Amino acid sequence: MQYHHISYEKTRNFCIKVFQGYGFSESESIQITDVLLDADLCGIESHGIQRLIRYHAEVTGGMAKPHAKPRIVKETPLSATIEGNDAMGQTLSVDAMNLAIQKAKQCGVGIVAVRNSNHYGIAGYYTRMAAEQGLIGICMTNSEAIMVPTFGKEAMLGTNPIAFSMPANPVPFTFDAATAVVPRGKLEVYAKRDGVIKDGWALDENGHPSTDASRVLTNIIHKTGGGILPLGGAGEETSGYKGYGFGMLCEICTGILSGGLTSNHVNRTPGRTNICHFFMAIDYGMFGEKEDLETALSKYLEELRRSPKAEGAQRIYTHGEKEFENRQKVMLEGISVNEKTYAEMQMIADYTGAADLLPEYLD
Amino acid sequence: MQYHHISYEKTRNFCIKVFQGYGFSESESIQITDVLLDADLCGIESHGIQRLIRYHAEVTGGMAKPHAKPRIVKETPLSATIEGNDAMGQTLSVDAMNLAIQKAKQCGVGIVAVRNSNHYGIAGYYTRMAAEQGLIGICMTNSEAIMVPTFGKEAMLGTNPIAFSMPANPVPFTFDAATAVVPRGKLEVYAKRDGVIKDGWALDENGHPSTDASRVLTNIIHKTGGGILPLGGAGEETSGYKGYGFGMLCEICTGILSGGLTSNHVNRTPGRTNICHFFMAIDYGMFGEKEDLETALSKYLEELRRSPKAEGAQRIYTHGEKEFENRQKVMLEGISVNEKTYAEMQMIADYTGAADLLPEYLD
Repeated sequence: MQYHHISYEKTRNFCIKVFQGYGFSESESIQITDVLLDADLCGIESHGIQRLIRYHAEVTGGMAKPHAKPRIVKETPLSATIEGNDAMGQTLSVDAMNLAIQKAKQCGVGIVAVRNSNHYGIAGYYTRMAAEQGLIGICMTNSEAIMVPTFGKEAMLGTNPIAFSMPANPVPFTFDAATAVVPRGKLEVYAKRDGVIKDGWALDENGHPSTDASRVLTNIIHKTGGGILPLGGAGEETSGYKGYGFGMLCEICTGILSGGLTSNHVNRTPGRTNICHFFMAIDYGMFGEKEDLETALSKYLEELRRSPKAEGAQRIYTHGEKEFENRQKVMLEGISVNEKTYAEMQMIADYTGAADLLPEYLD
Repeated sequence: MQYHHISYEKTRNFCIKVFQGYGFSESESIQITDVLLDADLCGIESHGIQRLIRYHAEVTGGMAKPHAKPRIVKETPLSATIEGNDAMGQTLSVDAMNLAIQKAKQCGVGIVAVRNSNHYGIAGYYTRMAAEQGLIGICMTNSEAIMVPTFGKEAMLGTNPIAFSMPANPVPFTFDAATAVVPRGKLEVYAKRDGVIKDGWALDENGHPSTDASRVLTNIIHKTGGGILPLGGAGEETSGYKGYGFGMLCEICTGILSGGLTSNHVNRTPGRTNICHFFMAIDYGMFGEKEDLETALSKYLEELRRSPKAEGAQRIYTHGEKEFENRQKVMLEGISVNEKTYAEMQMIADYTGAADLLPEYLD
């Protein structure tokens, strides 16, 4: 698949017009676009502009409703529960994290649980919103079931990412990871290569480890059993029950606390995804002088990066560094898109009346 | 190694007298004993009565001080930072979790960070304290560095357990797991068997995967490089950077927020361990009717347990079930101790003047 570059700024203007074309307001369209393209800035292609087609399907299919009216169904000084009413995941989530931030600034902690939302993009975007305000940010989402519990053979949990950010110098700490060992997108990439996935990633329909990418993906699509393993792999030998447990933590904070659905019931109602999220902000100034704590974290991150490397390894990363460095690169060189994605953008441009803003290839 | 059973009640009375013999008050001795023996009740032998010798060394070595005076150095309605002043980990931790519970009942959330403590036993004990009060409990601790960051070859993080409890029927959900792939105790068990540990557990002093238990353990003891891998294993193929990230989350919430030390500096000052903890309680009644949320969790846990099993698997567990079932068994049959542990108990009985309460073998 041939890749080309397109200008970040032009792609941003294009996307804003696209989302306005679906009926979102200008400010909502900016919110959605900024979350979407932040994935490209971070180098997470799977969640970036290549996923525009997925949001196109969500909106035109009626799952994500441009004129939905989310409402707060329960609120305390430091918490809120939001009924999403099938609004777009990104607009709900930006508003929810802003509410958590506002509550944390007033009370020390803010927690917002959201039910009946849609896909919200990369979790790290929202935790970085908190970090930019001098707070710790924590964020989780459930999703369609794709992860198999330890000793099971049916997907009962989502990929269930957990993200966590805290300000540090020169790069904020941002951990953003699915609790499944790999995301579905990774299976798709390997399926396109030679069809062989790594040992320890997935189970077949009988619950046996499988390295056959298309067999696993076909089972996932047709819900015929099997799925992706939790972080830690199959059985107990390399502690797969721990990844399963972190996935459960995510299910409890999202589907359970919000009064919504757990992942095994997500995407089961025609026309709705019913995805649920969790947002938390903590003002760590409650515990000590903020500057002192940031300095302590920055020092520890530096100690990690400078610690002795394994033979053959080039570099020890701290979480958020790769994404931070990629951001500068994309701003300079543009977003990398393949021709399939570009063709989808052309179709969407025509559909939404944004053809005049479709960015051209830079190379 | 020959195992025998000893009465739970008699062992409890014995331990209480032992800790009083070191100079702890009666109520402190009960706190320490109940955390210690809760591990045996849960079937976690590594953290139970067999570890009495370790606490004996901590107290007689002056690391854990019976007459220490911990103090709150910063407090808000929903948070506190405690300077542990080298008090016993269990007494500090029971008090800290009780404070978090009290704050959560008043404000919705309570968070307590503790620095300069000692080993505190099993994390799940403290999160279950919150669950017994109808709250979510979260708890973390750092420890001496033993986990190697991805692409590194020097231990820079502790085993760093994260625990989480929420009430459910018939068994509360309690997840309690090291973010390292396995605890050190597991290497010791395999070293005693045939000396071969599983692939994906540890690195040698050059940062290469190793299955040689005694080589890895010797390196750990002499701090000559290598150590235990994060959950997810070596490199990036099975996402070891995720276990490393969860370990970092634990370092930030414990060593950083408390104003204490990160694991790479723990156990480096003679006469002090400098271990740090984190305790959090959340009143989920903030988000909806508590009974409804508990019912939703109980239903999901039941769906997981009843979901189709992998070929050859007998049962799908939810987190906390095994421990819950083991508790009934130990109450009935007694605590299982090996002769080495019993000999240590005899020595400690003589040292503390508790010989009259030393429990006898039941078999």
